[in-house]
Amino acid sequence: MSGHMTPDEFRRYGRQVVDWIADYQERIESYPVLSRARPGEVLEALPEHPPERGEGFEAVLADLDRVIMPGITHWQHPGFYAYFPANASGPAILGDLLSAGLGVQGMLWATSPACTELETRVTDWLAELLGLPAAFRAAGAGGGVIQDSASSAALVAILAALHRADGGAAGRDGIARRHTLYVSSQTHSSLEKAARIAGIGAANVRIVDVDPATLAMDPARLDAMIAEDAAAGALPVLVCATVGTTSTTAVDPVAAIGEVCGRHGVWLHVDAAYAGVAAVCPELRWINDGLDGHADSYATNPHKWLLTNFDCNVLWVADRAPLVGALSILPEYLRNRASESGEVVDYRDWQISLGRRFRALKLWSVIRWYGAEGLREHVRTGVRLADELASWVRGDEAFELLEHHPFGLVCFRPRWDGLPDGEADAATLRLMDRLNASGDLYLSHTKVNGRVLLRVAIGAPATTAEHVRKTWQRIREEAAALA
Amino acid sequence: MSGHMTPDEFRRYGRQVVDWIADYQERIESYPVLSRARPGEVLEALPEHPPERGEGFEAVLADLDRVIMPGITHWQHPGFYAYFPANASGPAILGDLLSAGLGVQGMLWATSPACTELETRVTDWLAELLGLPAAFRAAGAGGGVIQDSASSAALVAILAALHRADGGAAGRDGIARRHTLYVSSQTHSSLEKAARIAGIGAANVRIVDVDPATLAMDPARLDAMIAEDAAAGALPVLVCATVGTTSTTAVDPVAAIGEVCGRHGVWLHVDAAYAGVAAVCPELRWINDGLDGHADSYATNPHKWLLTNFDCNVLWVADRAPLVGALSILPEYLRNRASESGEVVDYRDWQISLGRRFRALKLWSVIRWYGAEGLREHVRTGVRLADELASWVRGDEAFELLEHHPFGLVCFRPRWDGLPDGEADAATLRLMDRLNASGDLYLSHTKVNGRVLLRVAIGAPATTAEHVRKTWQRIREEAAALA
Repeated sequence: MSGHMTPDEFRRYGRQVVDWIADYQERIESYPVLSRARPGEVLEALPEHPPERGEGFEAVLADLDRVIMPGITHWQHPGFYAYFPANASGPAILGDLLSAGLGVQGMLWATSPACTELETRVTDWLAELLGLPAAFRAAGAGGGVIQDSASSAALVAILAALHRADGGAAGRDGIARRHTLYVSSQTHSSLEKAARIAGIGAANVRIVDVDPATLAMDPARLDAMIAEDAAAGALPVLVCATVGTTSTTAVDPVAAIGEVCGRHGVWLHVDAAYAGVAAVCPELRWINDGLDGHADSYATNPHKWLLTNFDCNVLWVADRAPLVGALSILPEYLRNRASESGEVVDYRDWQISLGRRFRALKLWSVIRWYGAEGLREHVRTGVRLADELASWVRGDEAFELLEHHPFGLVCFRPRWDGLPDGEADAATLRLMDRLNASGDLYLSHTKVNGRVLLRVAIGAPATTAEHVRKTWQRIREEAAALA
Repeated sequence: MSGHMTPDEFRRYGRQVVDWIADYQERIESYPVLSRARPGEVLEALPEHPPERGEGFEAVLADLDRVIMPGITHWQHPGFYAYFPANASGPAILGDLLSAGLGVQGMLWATSPACTELETRVTDWLAELLGLPAAFRAAGAGGGVIQDSASSAALVAILAALHRADGGAAGRDGIARRHTLYVSSQTHSSLEKAARIAGIGAANVRIVDVDPATLAMDPARLDAMIAEDAAAGALPVLVCATVGTTSTTAVDPVAAIGEVCGRHGVWLHVDAAYAGVAAVCPELRWINDGLDGHADSYATNPHKWLLTNFDCNVLWVADRAPLVGALSILPEYLRNRASESGEVVDYRDWQISLGRRFRALKLWSVIRWYGAEGLREHVRTGVRLADELASWVRGDEAFELLEHHPFGLVCFRPRWDGLPDGEADAATLRLMDRLNASGDLYLSHTKVNGRVLLRVAIGAPATTAEHVRKTWQRIREEAAALA
């Protein structure tokens, strides 16, 4: 048999893996950003059957290089501009390694008090770093919790909102009437998915118009829709306002939306998955405008732009009672004195799953390694590089820039002078495919008012001014060649 | 500012963390299993405010020892017998470290093909290792996917079942009629929680009687309840059968339940969260009886007893169409050629969240390091030690054994001769508290037919025959002292 890895073997192989990762960081630019693997190529290169006898860890590392790496799209590559960044930093990786090494499970306070209390502390720290309202701190009625993703945070917010709206009736007896949620056309698709999961139904996700210039939700229209739906017998449950939409980083008017929510008694969830962490910089703290006194829940992802490797979303609520009311359940085998004392938090009651990893360790490592200073510098670098790129795009007559770019995302398109809209959009997508096939960069696209735009999301720690300059040069050259 | 950790700094600190973990493994018995921290103790020892300037990683490691470790309950300690084990093995920790180091996000095939295809391969490997039905392999209509937990797997199964039962009506328009789920009194609480989350409601989770001796669900009673509910206008959606319940590792009669499900067209989900992995051993493969042709979905947790650190649940479905139908959504910014070709799997459509980690790496590392042989030996060790403990309990007149113990869990109680039931149960709980306060071991309890039993769940890699022998001696001594 192959026995357990001894501590000495762990030291030896652990060093090999650490060195492998450091080597990877050093040589990452030697890989094409976007994997060139064909569908099925990695699968076919892996043995069809599992091994009968165990192998040394060297065999895993050899196959990692031989089989896995050709199938990797390199999210940490300086030329990765697709989607949003998913920063993996050294301190986060090591914090996560410590979590794996400890191997504790934080479903209850009692199953590892430090797992719970460090999470309470670092979510408070992050609230302070971002300048979030005091209501979101654990000392009051609210508090923060780490979720795997903004999708889960949105689902959890909906369930808490539902519990507050109907006193727990839906959780007890099932959804029995029409419930409505409010989003804009720019809201992340996870809200519609959450509505399907929660039994509310995609058709009851009401899409509020946006201002065609700013792509921000129209609060007057929201007000009218909530009133109409309530008059028609529906139960309006939650409005999702977004700070930094996925498509273009549009910012909804949170204060005005919050006033509408307050008037109708509807839960306001603010999805700041990507952009929320930008508030570490005082000059970007305007993105918190309107949260105080209005937002019932707020979510942002340190695993995007704040150097904490996936998964690490933080969800804050202003009042934890409806959240716990929606998600708490206590079978005999989980009863324990600490929970019954009411003195402790059991984070299993703040999330979908029972089990939970010790994810606070990586966020703690990141905040301590970088300090507030280092986090600000990282965000500022991304914003500065995006500003530079935007200025070059703006100055080039062959391109049209989406002027709104407060964070690290820049959206634009070649004008393709003379081409009808449909053909121009097809050409933009062809350009994107050519750029992505080059191996030097990886962009994504979106549609705004029916037109295709390229999205360049800057924010990987490895990306420098020189990378962005070369990227822009490359885009111009390829566009010119295609034109 | 504190800048990014350089590759050389990562090498240096990475070695320190690897050594810290190896040291921890070596000295784990020097810690009390169950943390003695008071509520708030760890929180108070952590600074109230985040640091303005960054610190070296040495500071994090120093505070880990000083502040965090006293608040850790040691799940990897050889005396950890509470709940079920949450095995963290060397190869799993290193596989997870590689995942963090690569920092890729596998929401789509296109965002890292290897992340998807390795997952397809290793879930197929695990299906083969466990001898699961061919329908669960990716080559047919079904396939496996890694979820964070059995809670999520159950929720996803319910959503797929709902989609199949109503053609997607609830996902589209919301739940508008009474839907019912079927569990037993022994089913895990995550099913009730999932019913609340999915808008079905806790009151529509119908609890089927169990045989008081075996604690297994009564298929005839299930049959009658489904028929009654359907006749009363409800839509029966899903039955959850359990292989190895949390309370006592009871095993529901899957074949008989499956026949009932087939007759009524109801989805059969089999929750084998803890015990499913035991099927790596041919002598335990009887736990799969009745899956073939009956089970629509099946879930087990390599993160419990199969040496793969949390989180790693594997969910298999016999038909992926209703799963993808329930959970797929495609906004513009996620459109890509590979997805549209239909040649690839996008696992985001198999789970609640959009984002996903590269968890297949750790399961791959574990299967390769141990091989089928090593995995079997690990499970057999747990079963053998449990058998030994059970034989000692059985041979001691002062104790009463729950005779059913096919896996690693042994349930029993002191007889407390002469005491009325209520006082005897209180004494059992006092005994548990005293044992848990000793620092040498950590047990949990359950209630069976109204009586309190101690649960000793064996299966941590560090637990040897000698540890179990000493544990039994300790339990006898403390019980005698209390009697």
